[in-house]
Formats: sequence, C-alpha cells, structure tokens
Amino acid sequence: MSARKTPARWLARLRPVGVIRSILKSRKNAPRQGTEGAPDAWLEVLPWAAKGLHRMTVGDEIIVITWLHRARRNVLRVRPRSDPRNPLTGVFLTRSPDRPNPLGLHPVVVRAIQGNRLHIEPIDAIDGTPVLDIKPVLKDRQVR
Amino acid sequence: MSARKTPARWLARLRPVGVIRSILKSRKNAPRQGTEGAPDAWLEVLPWAAKGLHRMTVGDEIIVITWLHRARRNVLRVRPRSDPRNPLTGVFLTRSPDRPNPLGLHPVVVRAIQGNRLHIEPIDAIDGTPVLDIKPVLKDRQVR
Repeated sequence: MSARKTPARWLARLRPVGVIRSILKSRKNAPRQGTEGAPDAWLEVLPWAAKGLHRMTVGDEIIVITWLHRARRNVLRVRPRSDPRNPLTGVFLTRSPDRPNPLGLHPVVVRAIQGNRLHIEPIDAIDGTPVLDIKPVLKDRQVR
Repeated sequence: MSARKTPARWLARLRPVGVIRSILKSRKNAPRQGTEGAPDAWLEVLPWAAKGLHRMTVGDEIIVITWLHRARRNVLRVRPRSDPRNPLTGVFLTRSPDRPNPLGLHPVVVRAIQGNRLHIEPIDAIDGTPVLDIKPVLKDRQVR
C-alpha cells in the first residue's frame, strides 16, 4: 500500500479504553463546553487498560479524548452554537460534536483516583461516552 | 444496548479526512515533539471533506488529530522518551505514539492555504499519516 493511497484505503478500528460516567444523560442537557457549568464525572478505565494509568496522581492535568457516539458524521458545515445568526462555518473551525470523526477533546483535572476510576472535572460528555485515549497536558518545555 | 455495556461491544470505524505530506519519511527521524525542530508540512484535506475548512484563514491556530499508523497498540507502559533512566510510566501519562488508540494531537498554525491544502507548522508527524479531525484552538472564553 503506497503512502499516496493510504487515506482512501485505510480504515482503523477503535477500541475504547474507558467510559464516562456522568449524571448528564443526553446531549440536550450537555453544556457546549466543559467550562460552562459541566458537572463532575468519573472516567472508568477498563481493566485491561488500567496499567496505562501507572504513576498518575491527583491534581494531574490531562486531556481525555472521547468518541462522541451520539454525533452525526455526515456534517461538514454548521452555524456555530446552533445560533442562526452565526454564519455557516466548516466543522473544522468549530467544536461541534457533529463531524466526520466525532472525537471530543476534554482538558480536565484529576480530582480523585479510586483504582481504575478517575474523578475528573469539568467534562461536558454524556454518560456512556466511550473514552479512546488520555494524554498529559504538556507544560512549557515539559515533555514526557 | 445499555449504556453500561457500551464499551465492551462498541467498535467504531475511522474515516480519514486528510493526510500529512512531509519530508519526514520515518519514525526514526521524527522529533519527539513538534516544538523540537519539526519541519514544515502540508495537510491535504480529502476532496469530500474540504467543505469542513469553510472560513479558515491564514494564521488560524488549530489542533490536528492524526492516527499514528506506525505505532504499536499493545503498549500500556513505557519509559518516557525511550530513556532507560526514566521510570516505567503508564502511556496515558505520556505522549508516546505507542498506545491502544494511537491518536496524535498536534497544535499548529496555518501558514498558507491552497485550495484543500493547508501549510502547517510545526508538526512531527511522518509523511502519509492519516488526519482524522481538525479543531480550533479555543482561546479564553472564545467558543465557536
């Protein structure tokens, strides 16, 4: 498979490493960004992936990457914040959940750790949202 | 399908929206972070997804999300920066490309736009890396 042909032929499968547990049960009630009054929530890492948390500590700043499983994938332009006064804008310039690959990026702080469960805040993802990856927030010149 | 059972049963397919074109041809030559001397590169958005760029302008700060297709997916702990003096650390506390879902996050600046091609810098992804999503960097209180 040549590099030139990679994108058209290529198809990858995602395997969730965890799931969000939250009192938010539907998109309708979800705030548009985590900073807009999102409730606390738990990230349950699946047992097989729990070793990936090794050395995590309370207070760590992380980026949780989710799959926004309720999103529509055939959307390329939206009116930001669903406001009809906003101009049609490409989804790649917005944080709309509706997009070809509905990945969510959630910067959060780890408030508590109980085994393979992380208490995180704030996060605007609904209950049952699959978690694909967790990454550290990189501070100036800090690279791990 | 109950929310409780979502992660175990759930499997999503990714569809690349673009590809990185770079003079970096292999992982061996890639810098460990984009700030460490990464070369300029182009992001080619596939024609079907080009509408998602509508209203993008030169100077925009974006986060490119890639699939690090050369990574190993069965790795849960690493010694950061492949340095044997570093302690074994869960991959979720590192930016190692080797992880269960090898997603790459690349904050870059759009330096030029030619049709569906974005000249971006700096980015440490190798040539042929599939691009899954593009998001705006959110500034203080700015939400789109």
